[in-house]
Amino acid sequence: MKDCLFCNPMSFPEQKIVYENESCFFIQSPRAQDILEGAGLIIPKAHTETVFDLSEKEWLDTYDLMQKAKKLLDETYGPEGYSTGWNVKPVGGQSIPHAHFHIIPRFADEPFAGKGIRAWIKSEANRRPGRQIEAEVK
Amino acid sequence: MKDCLFCNPMSFPEQKIVYENESCFFIQSPRAQDILEGAGLIIPKAHTETVFDLSEKEWLDTYDLMQKAKKLLDETYGPEGYSTGWNVKPVGGQSIPHAHFHIIPRFADEPFAGKGIRAWIKSEANRRPGRQIEAEVK
Repeated sequence: MKDCLFCNPMSFPEQKIVYENESCFFIQSPRAQDILEGAGLIIPKAHTETVFDLSEKEWLDTYDLMQKAKKLLDETYGPEGYSTGWNVKPVGGQSIPHAHFHIIPRFADEPFAGKGIRAWIKSEANRRPGRQIEAEVK
Repeated sequence: MKDCLFCNPMSFPEQKIVYENESCFFIQSPRAQDILEGAGLIIPKAHTETVFDLSEKEWLDTYDLMQKAKKLLDETYGPEGYSTGWNVKPVGGQSIPHAHFHIIPRFADEPFAGKGIRAWIKSEANRRPGRQIEAEVK
């Protein structure tokens, strides 16, 4: 799509294409790395809205680039962990409607070390209005 | 592994196996669904520590169950979005060392609607000590 950032990653000089295979790119952007050092994205080359819309071929090519990216990030940054995944739709925090798999190195000296991708979403502060606490599963 | 919760999902009555295929399960637990209504996990049947250790077969079987789970969750809960992904290693928030793919329905009436899996991790509050702000990429 003409106006989609991830359909045209090469037209944005701040996006660096690190690896590619038949259907996907692994890209990094300095903007994303201000706090998230080493963070990158795997995106399909074709416009594909969410992770659920990826073809089997794109899913497998994501795996291939994920392994290459992990090796590079381990060697370059030596993280102690990773956060990985896809946001889906604006309510899920997906800001660009072209599927992008986040690979985020995590470090023991982060203030939020040990906090995963669900930590805040599952917190009491995110309880939906009118939802009961079910005592038996607390 | 003998003491691994996800190697023995059937031995924990609170874990419900919803779907399975050759190498993976899709499971739900009421405990995880107190605030995260509908949330579930896709796990390999074999002990596999992180997402990076999944075999290609397990990766493809994860895709298969993800599509089935998405259909079920859409029909059952009607979410407006999803959060999906894997935590890796304790620093990344992985509490059980057996890879598990989170599928979390997201709803427009959540206090944190619109916040994705990176929202807090990329925030100023998570800046590592001694890391400079690079003005040119702010």
